[in-house]
Order: sequence, then C-alpha cells, then structure tokens
Amino acid sequence: MFLKNAWYVACTPDEIEGRPLGRKICNESMVFFRGADGAVTALEDFCPHRGAPLSLGFMRDGQLVCGYHGLTMGVEGKCVSMPGQRVGGFPALRRFPAVERYGFVWVWPGDPAQADPAKIHHLEWAENPEWAYGGGLYHIACDYRLMIDNLMDLTHETYVHASSIGQAEIEEAAPETKLEGETVVTRRFMEGITPPPFWAAALRGNGLADNVPCDRWQICRFSAPSHVMIEVGVAHAGNGGYHADARHKASSVVVDFITPETDTSIWYFWGMARNFKPHDTELTATIREGQGKIFAEDLEMLEAQQRNLLAHSTRNLLKLNIDSGGVQSRKMLDRLIAAEQQAQAASQASGAGQPSAVAS
Amino acid sequence: MFLKNAWYVACTPDEIEGRPLGRKICNESMVFFRGADGAVTALEDFCPHRGAPLSLGFMRDGQLVCGYHGLTMGVEGKCVSMPGQRVGGFPALRRFPAVERYGFVWVWPGDPAQADPAKIHHLEWAENPEWAYGGGLYHIACDYRLMIDNLMDLTHETYVHASSIGQAEIEEAAPETKLEGETVVTRRFMEGITPPPFWAAALRGNGLADNVPCDRWQICRFSAPSHVMIEVGVAHAGNGGYHADARHKASSVVVDFITPETDTSIWYFWGMARNFKPHDTELTATIREGQGKIFAEDLEMLEAQQRNLLAHSTRNLLKLNIDSGGVQSRKMLDRLIAAEQQAQAASQASGAGQPSAVAS
Amino acid sequence: MFLKNAWYVACTPDEIEGRPLGRKICNESMVFFRGADGAVTALEDFCPHRGAPLSLGFMRDGQLVCGYHGLTMGVEGKCVSMPGQRVGGFPALRRFPAVERYGFVWVWPGDPAQADPAKIHHLEWAENPEWAYGGGLYHIACDYRLMIDNLMDLTHETYVHASSIGQAEIEEAAPETKLEGETVVTRRFMEGITPPPFWAAALRGNGLADNVPCDRWQICRFSAPSHVMIEVGVAHAGNGGYHADARHKASSVVVDFITPETDTSIWYFWGMARNFKPHDTELTATIREGQGKIFAEDLEMLEAQQRNLLAHSTRNLLKLNIDSGGVQSRKMLDRLIAAEQQAQAASQASGAGQPSAVAS
Repeated sequence: MFLKNAWYVACTPDEIEGRPLGRKICNESMVFFRGADGAVTALEDFCPHRGAPLSLGFMRDGQLVCGYHGLTMGVEGKCVSMPGQRVGGFPALRRFPAVERYGFVWVWPGDPAQADPAKIHHLEWAENPEWAYGGGLYHIACDYRLMIDNLMDLTHETYVHASSIGQAEIEEAAPETKLEGETVVTRRFMEGITPPPFWAAALRGNGLADNVPCDRWQICRFSAPSHVMIEVGVAHAGNGGYHADARHKASSVVVDFITPETDTSIWYFWGMARNFKPHDTELTATIREGQGKIFAEDLEMLEAQQRNLLAHSTRNLLKLNIDSGGVQSRKMLDRLIAAEQQAQAASQASGAGQPSAVAS
Repeated sequence: MFLKNAWYVACTPDEIEGRPLGRKICNESMVFFRGADGAVTALEDFCPHRGAPLSLGFMRDGQLVCGYHGLTMGVEGKCVSMPGQRVGGFPALRRFPAVERYGFVWVWPGDPAQADPAKIHHLEWAENPEWAYGGGLYHIACDYRLMIDNLMDLTHETYVHASSIGQAEIEEAAPETKLEGETVVTRRFMEGITPPPFWAAALRGNGLADNVPCDRWQICRFSAPSHVMIEVGVAHAGNGGYHADARHKASSVVVDFITPETDTSIWYFWGMARNFKPHDTELTATIREGQGKIFAEDLEMLEAQQRNLLAHSTRNLLKLNIDSGGVQSRKMLDRLIAAEQQAQAASQASGAGQPSAVAS
Repeated sequence: MFLKNAWYVACTPDEIEGRPLGRKICNESMVFFRGADGAVTALEDFCPHRGAPLSLGFMRDGQLVCGYHGLTMGVEGKCVSMPGQRVGGFPALRRFPAVERYGFVWVWPGDPAQADPAKIHHLEWAENPEWAYGGGLYHIACDYRLMIDNLMDLTHETYVHASSIGQAEIEEAAPETKLEGETVVTRRFMEGITPPPFWAAALRGNGLADNVPCDRWQICRFSAPSHVMIEVGVAHAGNGGYHADARHKASSVVVDFITPETDTSIWYFWGMARNFKPHDTELTATIREGQGKIFAEDLEMLEAQQRNLLAHSTRNLLKLNIDSGGVQSRKMLDRLIAAEQQAQAASQASGAGQPSAVAS
C-alpha cells in the first residue's frame, strides 16, 4: 500500500550517466535514461518486440537501443526505429513522468495527468550554496513504513547506534509530536548532555570544543509520500540550544527519501545536508562515510523485523508516545491512499479511460 | 507432524553464554537466555513493542533488552521496563517451559501445564564421572523422521560411511527390532569381523590391539519425541562380545537428539559418550572431530532424499526388515501425536482456555 | 508445454563415464548410466526403497547401487539385489527409452511404445570423417522456446554478439522463412561484407585471406522437438557465396539441441561442426572456446527476458518478419503438441492402460 500519485526519488544522476538504469519502483519495472536534450525519461522496462528489459541496452544519440535486436526507443515511449522494420504501428510503452531536481531524479508512478513538478517539496539545502550534501543508497527488504517508523522515533539510536549517535538521554527526553499542515513533526530536546562520538567529531570538524556540556535536538519531519527530513544538532550549552548562533553549534539535516520497490522492499536514499564548511569536500566525504556506517546498522534490524511481522501477521503492535511520529505518519498515508483510491474508482465509474498509453 | 508436548534439546549452554539465542523449534520462533539466577528462559522471539526479534538484543542484569528501542523483558515473558514508559499494560509474551539438564537446554513447545522436567529421559553418561561426552550441532533440511529412519537402520553405514565405520558385515547381519516399553530397540551383532578404521582407532586409543578378529554390536534405542541413543562397540573376539569385560573392548554411546525446526528441517545434536579414559580431553576432541566428519556424510543424502520425496509425494516407500526400527518408531510417534491431538480437541471442546498467556 | 514423445539430447557420453548422472528432463528426474553391455539406461531417479536419488549411488558390474542402503538396480528398472533382502516383489522403476547416437545420449520422456530410434534425425556431420565437432553444455533459466526464437532470428548477433559475429549488415539483410516438410528454414544472405572477427579468424584458420570482401550466409533449420541446426559461413566474394567451392570459403554448422529441464529452464547443448581441417584438434578446441564465450552472451539476455515475461504474462509480443522463423517453429510445436495430447486423451478414453511400468 503506497501512494501512486506522488513524486518518489528514483535515482541519482550518476546512475544514468551514459547508460540506462533499470529499477523497480512501486512494483513497476522502469528504465531511466537521458534523452538527446539531457532530460530524464522513465519508461516501462519492457521491449515491445520480444519483452527483453530495455535497461540491458545502450544509449545512442539520446535514444535507447534494445540490446537484443536493436529496437530503438524514443523518450516518448514510442519506438523510433528498428533496422529493416516499419515501426509506425508498434505499441507505445507506458511513460512515467520524471524530472531531475535537487540532485535527484524523481518519478511519478501514478496518473501522468496529475504529475505536476511543482508538487516536489522545496529542498532549500539542495540549492543554496551555503549548504553541502553527501549521501548514498541502500536496498532494504522491508515495508517502506517500517523505515518511516524508524526515522520518526529516534529512540532507537540509543540501541541500534549505541557507539556513534546513541546516548541514554535520548530515551529520557520524551518527544512531542504534532501535525503541522501536511507535515508530521516530532521534536526532542536534550539539555546539558555529553555529545556522543559522532557529534563530538562534528563539533571538532566545525572548530568547536567537544568536551563541554551541550544541548542536543532532533526535529523529524515526515511528508508524503515517504520523505523524512530531520534537523539534528548540538550547541554548547547556554547559547540557546536549537536557536543558538551558528558559531556555537554543529547542526545538519538528515535527508531520507524512502522509495518503495515492492510491498516489502525499499530503495533508501540517505544523506546529510549541512550549512557549515560547505566547500570542504573532504569533510563531506568523512561525514558521508560515518553516516553510511551508522545507517547500515538499521538494515539487519529492519529486515529481521519485517520477517518477524510477516510470520506473525495477525499480531498487534504497541503504539507508545515514542511511536507517535510513525503512527501519525501512517494515519496521514492511510488517509491519502484512501482518497487516491476513491478518486480512481470514481474516475473509472464515470467511464474515463486509462490515463496513459499502455501497450496491450 | 511432531509432538508438541515433549522435551526437545534446544541448544547447548555455550550458545547462551552472555547473550540471547534465537532459534526456531517446532515452527515456533523462540529466544533463549539466562535470567539473573542463571536459570534458562525461553520466550517467543517477538518484541511486543514493534515486532523486532528479541534475540537481536542483549542481556542486562539477567533481563533481555530489545536491541531496537530498549524494551526490557523479564524471564516471565512480561515487560519489566522501558525508558520513559509505563509498561504495566504491555501484553505478555508466550513462555515456553525450559530447563537445563545433562549439559543441554531443553524446551517444551506444547502445553506448559504438562511440562514436567521429570519426563526428561535419564542420561546416565551425562552425570557419571566415569563417562566423557563430546558432540556438535548440524542443521539439516529434512523431516526429522528421515533422520530417525537413518539412525534406526545402520545398514547405511556400509554405503554412506564406507571409509570409516561401514563394512559389508553390517548388511549381512540381520537386525532384530523390538518394542521395549516406550522404547523401540534395534539390535545387530557381528562376530569375528575386522574392525573398520574408526573402531581400529578406538581400540588403539583404548590401548588394545586393532589387528585381531573382533565382535561388533549396534543397539539403537528410539524414544519419543525424537531421541536415538545407540550403543556401539567392538570387543576382541572370544570374550563375550557386547558382554565382554571392559579391558577387552572399546565401546560408546552415540547420542542423537533430533529437534524439528520446521516440517522439513532439523537441528541435529549429535555426540558420543564413552566410559573409557573419560578424563582424556584430547581423545574426546579426536573422537568428536572424527564423528563430525562421519555424520556430515549423512547431510547430502538426507537433503537429497527430502527433495526427492517432496517431488514424489504420493509414492510409497518400501518397509523392509532393516527398516523395522524406523517403521516402529514412526508408529509410536503416530500413536502419540494422535493422542495429543485428541486430548487437545477434547480440551478445547470442553471450553478450556489457552494454556499459556498469549499476547494478542 | 513441450513434446513428450520425442528424442531429446540428455547428456554426452563423458558425463556417464563410470558413474551415474542425475538430470531432470521435461520435468522428470532421471538417472542415466551404462549397463554391463555398455548400453545406456535412463530410469526414474528415485530409489524404491527409501526415495533417495539413485544418482548419488555408484556403478558396480554394470548395475547401479544406491548410495544409501545398497539396493542394486538393473538396466530394466527392476531391483536385482539388495544385501539380506528378497527383492522379487520390489516395485519397478519407470524406464525411459534411451539410446546413444552421434556422440550424444538421447532420451524419450513420453510413451515408450512409440520410441523408435529411427526417429532421431540423421546428423551427417557426426558420422562423416570429413567433419569435426566440438561443443558444450549450458544451463539457462528460460523457456526452451525463447532459445528457439533466439536461434531462428540471428539479428540478435549484431547486438548480443557485437564483438565477434555481429555486424550491421545482418539486420540490413531481410531473412526469408519457409516451411520445408517438417523443417522450418530461415535464410539470410549478405554480399560483399567485411568478415567480423570470428569469421576473419575462421578464414585464417582455413588458410584464406581475411581482408577481402566476402559473402556471408546463415541458414537456420528448426525441427521438432527443439533442435536448431544453422549453416553459417563466409566465402571470398565472387565465388558463388554459399555455393562457392570449398577452397574459397570457411563454413560450418552451428548445432543446438535445446532440452527442456522444466517449463522455465533448459539444458542447452551447443556446438559447431565443420568440414575443413577435421583432424586439427587444436583448431577444434580454439573454435569451441570462442563459441563458448559467444554463446554465454545469450544467457543474461534470455534469463532477463524470461523474468520480464513472467512479470508481464498478459502482454503480447510483436511478430516481425525477422521473427518469422521463431513464429513458424512455435506454430509447428503447437500443432504437434496438440496432436500428442489429443492422441493421449483418445488412448485414455478407450481404456488403454499406462504405457510403462510405474511403481506405485
């Protein structure tokens, strides 16, 4: 169960550099490539000739050539040529709206008519030169909502990430969860704590003492379909905490784009955006490596949790105050998914046709 | 199809040394750990908070802490604490009766009310200082009854273990099978044979000549739910064979605890108990290594047999005289399983509740 | 869907040299071995005693001994002996007609009464000393008909085998497809082309210049159940092309026996027969190695195509002129399979029994 009429992160530009990329998103096998004008295209990954994945092919003059028999596919999803063939009557492929923005390729698996790029959330850190970003991609065999739960309840840091960002004070500080418009926000503040290893290093990286009492904050923001942005940071105590001046703190935004692959697997685009020393590429690489190790610690837990839930499918889970972020995020999703399905049913009842060209 | 109201070997003490162990037994995912008093506990391996396997957690003061968000589970299966939470209303986990005895941890997957540790079979070799024991654990993808068949018909030694304990005289000596109370016994005696390599080494290890004619015996004893103890040995011929005085023979007990994991996989605890040179730990290690290699030879055959049987599920197998031990063991199991299911049906019809606390 | 009443290549003689071979063919698990007279036998790979695969056993005096308990199976599928047992009443195993011919072992998975070795297609290159043959075996996870399509449309060489036998002129030359009796034939001729690397090497290997314009041909012949023989070659231009005298050309027959393992996997016996330098075993090895690398390039594509088709099972594929060879081959197969099923239904309706002894 996921939203289809939504923008998901599909890949990063380096993944389609000079070659097509095959990736399943929301149960649809897609092929991504750049056309002659450099714009990104997403099509069904299925050659209309003999059914080979087009992603096994190659790029030629901004067109995608099937690696089996040379059928050449244009960015519109229409076959543009094939040696020795008249291709006018070839069935078109389904095309998925795709755009490149903020350093990511975004795809809309649902009704193309509703795919407005303006609906992509604004990402200040991706465009402002005062910010730097580094990140990576993990494939995890779990329902995308388990990852939302994970990120909207950072209590788990104390256990899963005990050696880097975890500390007992996290679980001692009750979080507060609110719905703010279309965003679920969970806030947690800790005061006068000792910064854990990751943050001690960040303070040093920012030229600040790491052995003084600090205030620490975590502000998690979920928005549909499955994005979680988390403001995190520490400030030398007594300077206003979250609101402290930049010269007293180290802070950043944890970036999480969770793209469902299937009902029980995800493409997890993780990263960190920071607005200190934005031009220090070595620091970006160091942070990226550290974050990559920390976030890999979630994999085993989430996949084991998924297997356990599938094996005990009728059991109810607890919903504690710390789970409120995840619970409210799921409620928002349930509401949006129900509305989407209702609209689709209404549209079909009124006799409207399929929204996009589908080869039969 | 296996007995639920029975004691199965779950693990060895070293497997829960300072950490929890997750193991599926009779289709139930269980977590094993030691409480503060050192006693062993077995619970469902499912955190009532978010469904993570508790076996991914860690021990703290004799309690099991979930590795995801720190829910702390007591030996009774009740949550005893969680940071920042009132845990009184948390659902309890199902607890499986478990005891430690004879150097093993035993678990009872069925009705706790019937779980009497006195029902664990007495194992003389495990408590008598005149005996030494060494063994190991294999995971095998086969129905536990295929392993019972295997052990109750040692004819296979001639083929599967041709280079160590097999010899043509085994299959030439017809076995005799009897039901003795709750035990199925298959006996086979060979006279004036040349001891095969494993037994020649055992004779030497016991300070006896290995190049003289010997008598050899195999007495296999099956008892429910799935234990097979096998008296095996050789004696210099002319000294009474099985009844020969200790100074003329090398003998031991092959120990086999077969614990079903699922319908088609087992945890196979194998070992050997001997009452000669019990304090010679080097000899124990040598025997253990030799036995481990021999018993590994059964794996490929049993897993291939299992696949073949699944692919030909309607075919009948032969029941020869050599199969009598397995056939009678299966008959005993069928009878006990039918009785258990009948009792359970009667209990449910009379309105009796679930025997143990189960979280819903 | 495959023909059962047909001869399939099962294995090569070296695979049953001194030992039995287990292989699944047309969804039947079979064991192949040589009897005392050297003739090949194919039986169900299922020991009637306890269901172990007989192929895990060993040969003794031309009989197959089960590796579990020593049941000894004769070439007729009847148990001939077992230590300490009277085997007269043991159920017989189903025996599949098998013959050795042309350097291959052939098996008939269907009705034994119809299994006439004379139905095996004559293979001139396998018996004539003027010819040499080299080949290999690949296991591929695809429907056997996808491999037939592949071989009956060599347009794919331009893409899948671009660095060896592919060239743009292939797709520029329209193929011509005809039904000739029981054979589907697809012909393609190219004139005045530059020989691609594989053929340049073949010309040199045959003592001919490789840097002159050539004529090239591909004549693919499909015959049921799943054999594709392809005449391929190049001749120095101006000498009659396909009909050129032997001293102007390098030519050979690509040999493809496609044996279904299951509905979606095959044993692919590939090879090349040539009638130049037939005694040059080094050349045979060189060609074999080159062909092996080229034909391995098809694996990834065919397996990806198979997965894509399974995921999009309702979609129709295109049938272009280049696909005509595959389309007509499938039509012939559909017709033959329908006839076989009709005959079987009629035979069952008339009360005829099972055609072969089947253990129950």
